[in-house]
Amino acid sequence: MAKQLHLGAFMRPVSIHTGAWRYPGALPDANFSLAAIQRFIRSLEAAKFDYFFMADHLGVLNLPRQALMRSHTVTSFEPFTLLSALAGVTERIGLVATASTTYDEPFHVARRFASLDHISGGRTGWNVVTTSNPDSSRNFGLETQPDHAARYHRAREFHDVVTGLWDSFADDAFVMDAAKGIYFDPARMHALNHKGEHFSVSGPLNIARPVQGWPVIFQAGASDPGRQLAAETAEAVFAAESTLEGSKAYYDDVKGRAATVGRNPDHIKIMPAVFLVVGDTVEEARAKRAKLDSLVHYDSGIHSLSGMLGHDVSGFDPDGPLPDIPESNASKSSRRFMIELARAENLTIRQLAAKAGSYGGLAFVGTAKTIADEMQHWLEQAACDGFTTMFPYLPEGLEDFTGKVVPELQARGLFRTEYEGETLRDHLGLPRPDNRFFA
Amino acid sequence: MAKQLHLGAFMRPVSIHTGAWRYPGALPDANFSLAAIQRFIRSLEAAKFDYFFMADHLGVLNLPRQALMRSHTVTSFEPFTLLSALAGVTERIGLVATASTTYDEPFHVARRFASLDHISGGRTGWNVVTTSNPDSSRNFGLETQPDHAARYHRAREFHDVVTGLWDSFADDAFVMDAAKGIYFDPARMHALNHKGEHFSVSGPLNIARPVQGWPVIFQAGASDPGRQLAAETAEAVFAAESTLEGSKAYYDDVKGRAATVGRNPDHIKIMPAVFLVVGDTVEEARAKRAKLDSLVHYDSGIHSLSGMLGHDVSGFDPDGPLPDIPESNASKSSRRFMIELARAENLTIRQLAAKAGSYGGLAFVGTAKTIADEMQHWLEQAACDGFTTMFPYLPEGLEDFTGKVVPELQARGLFRTEYEGETLRDHLGLPRPDNRFFA
Ligand SMILES: Cc1cc2nc3c(=O)[nH]c(=O)nc-3n(C[C@H](O)[C@H](O)[C@H](O)COP(=O)(O)O)c2cc1C
Ligand SMILES: Cc1cc2nc3c(=O)[nH]c(=O)nc-3n(C[C@H](O)[C@H](O)[C@H](O)COP(=O)(O)O)c2cc1C
Repeated sequence: MAKQLHLGAFMRPVSIHTGAWRYPGALPDANFSLAAIQRFIRSLEAAKFDYFFMADHLGVLNLPRQALMRSHTVTSFEPFTLLSALAGVTERIGLVATASTTYDEPFHVARRFASLDHISGGRTGWNVVTTSNPDSSRNFGLETQPDHAARYHRAREFHDVVTGLWDSFADDAFVMDAAKGIYFDPARMHALNHKGEHFSVSGPLNIARPVQGWPVIFQAGASDPGRQLAAETAEAVFAAESTLEGSKAYYDDVKGRAATVGRNPDHIKIMPAVFLVVGDTVEEARAKRAKLDSLVHYDSGIHSLSGMLGHDVSGFDPDGPLPDIPESNASKSSRRFMIELARAENLTIRQLAAKAGSYGGLAFVGTAKTIADEMQHWLEQAACDGFTTMFPYLPEGLEDFTGKVVPELQARGLFRTEYEGETLRDHLGLPRPDNRFFA
Repeated sequence: MAKQLHLGAFMRPVSIHTGAWRYPGALPDANFSLAAIQRFIRSLEAAKFDYFFMADHLGVLNLPRQALMRSHTVTSFEPFTLLSALAGVTERIGLVATASTTYDEPFHVARRFASLDHISGGRTGWNVVTTSNPDSSRNFGLETQPDHAARYHRAREFHDVVTGLWDSFADDAFVMDAAKGIYFDPARMHALNHKGEHFSVSGPLNIARPVQGWPVIFQAGASDPGRQLAAETAEAVFAAESTLEGSKAYYDDVKGRAATVGRNPDHIKIMPAVFLVVGDTVEEARAKRAKLDSLVHYDSGIHSLSGMLGHDVSGFDPDGPLPDIPESNASKSSRRFMIELARAENLTIRQLAAKAGSYGGLAFVGTAKTIADEMQHWLEQAACDGFTTMFPYLPEGLEDFTGKVVPELQARGLFRTEYEGETLRDHLGLPRPDNRFFA
């Protein structure tokens, strides 16, 4: 059989687009409405998605109030509580939670994932993050976040402790022999007794080994240490490249690094995030996206634009052209991109702010056929193993994808029509890890 | 209407008795079987219980392997994941989770409870513990646990930070005006900016205020600082007194302390834990309990006995009498109690070990009528506002109580026959707290 795509859904926020909650037909409270999220996950499961993914941020974004008040992401469920609740209304779809290695304890994280894996019958994945938002530190007693290298160093040890704790019991430890009064075989229990640079954790974990052995390890590092951590530990990664070439290079780099450390490159799936707008014609899809972009509030867009330019442009006339912006220490590639765009399309500051406030990453905007073509092309070019889909507005944008694009992918033999296995590892074609302490 | 009882169920472990999993008809894996726990909570909800309570321990008990291997509590779900899953199969019953102030962060705890309160429609309670098991420290990087006073000092500040974070948004903050592009009113958001002795937390919390304003605060402190914390902050407490007189004294003490700090004593409910064995006759109930006690494995019982005596008695002949046990530094009231029991009833070490491994706290063993009499007497004597029930073996012991004792209490007008409200605060008759930052 030809290689098939994997599909995950990026569901926190349910739409990453700041105008989404204002779109006609959208549910403004979808980020914190259990009923809405239950509806979404049921659609995704009916479409046989591999997983439902919850990002996580340990605080409210540190934006000026005028920009923050436009945001539909300021309130949201916490991932473990939400995914545990969703486990009960689904049977097969994977449930991926983000947990931070910078602001949490390995014992807590190991336990919560093990518990969710038991509750869901083996459907859990852990998105390992070092927490990108620097403001989070101030919710955990630190003035500033630990530096990038220190965060990744801690992340690596954190991973080793968590996986070691998951292996506290052999899969067959719990004999539950009532007649003899033997609940478990103590020879099949291992206390980790980890003592490292960042953590000292005795163990054992007070829960049986997860159904999957270990929940699936996800990662999204883009930097060199991020990619290295992914290569050494991850089984699925989110690439954030916005071009086919960029994603191919990422794919080769991360799979190459995995091979270098002795891993099977097939056991690390590259799942770029892609923003999707589906129309019955390409023009309709583009018009939908333009409408959505027009719903980015000026106060929000202008703040994003200032950030991208590295210069506060909120004082200029919104309906005038972009004046010359001086180079600054904060200058980045986004500055050049935005200035060129303003000149090339002759945009006002207001028009430019709407673009800045929109989603800037990889986007497929078209019909079921053109989007399926693009996905197929990326797969055939070995730029990915599948996609982490992002919906523009919900429920419509999600149901356009599950109702129109998924059947097209299925008709081409590029996506499953039934779940073949029970666990997230089954869906992704990943092996169950051996227990490092017990055969 | 006469005063009614409140009833909660102590469900982690599902039975506190170490012989429970061996009892005929018991489900040996009930502590980690979602299906079993779903069945139990449905029975409790059908009986109109106020709440389902999950204790929590941050590690495996540090017992010799010979004793530990007899225990059905070595594996268990983590409270937040389990209660979120159970929220979906229930509609009214309260869901109380234990969370530690010694080994967690206020931002995480505030968020998880807020999320669970939204998921469950306002049914959450927080059992505030400083974590009694000293071995937990070694799962969190500490050789020994912080001392008792330091733990309670931190607990008080932790509580203030958590409740302050819950008040981050006014109840009406989220206007979601799509036409104007106003998601929330920034004047109705408050950043805590707490800087204290143990914590520095900027806030705001990234979730709307809990449905209940604050989840209900539970506490089980027995020591002087524990009672003081309860009096100042708790809305329900677990008393662990084993006599009516002891519980009356506890009741008066804690409600008196609450009045002294200016609180309404009716807003702190005293809910002693009680172990319940129901029979059709008193003799049958006693025989059931004796049978259960006989299922405590000798290796487990002898370890408990040694602990109670403050002296290792595992080397003596199990079928001989208890020799003289020297006084020691570890001597406690339990030593005297056990020695007197051995002499009075002429017990062998084996028989004594079975008693030691059984449940030693308050127990009502009898028929529906005698148990209802005792509960009524405790209520009328102002020794409690209700009970936190502990079942001896499940499902039978639980269903004996819900099927036989609850109808008797209802017939006497001592317990509700329908839920009158929606939230746990409604069930317990507790007011919804004002937001300290917003009218
Ligand atoms: C699809 C995707 C999802 C992400 N989710 C989170 C998240 O939930 N929480 C977080 O702190 N960072 C998240 N990140 C950021 C990454 O963890 C990482 O910090 C970022 O890609 C930069 O890489 P670096 O940390 O290696 O510099 C995400 C990134 C991507 C591409
Ligand atoms: C019904 C009940 C439940 C309890 N649950 C827990 C628990 O889940 N976790 C915990 O660490 N301690 C628990 N405890 C212990 C108390 O939190 C407390 O430490 C103990 O009662 C001793 O009081 P003190 O801490 O004031 O000395 C519980 C106590 C009782 C009576």
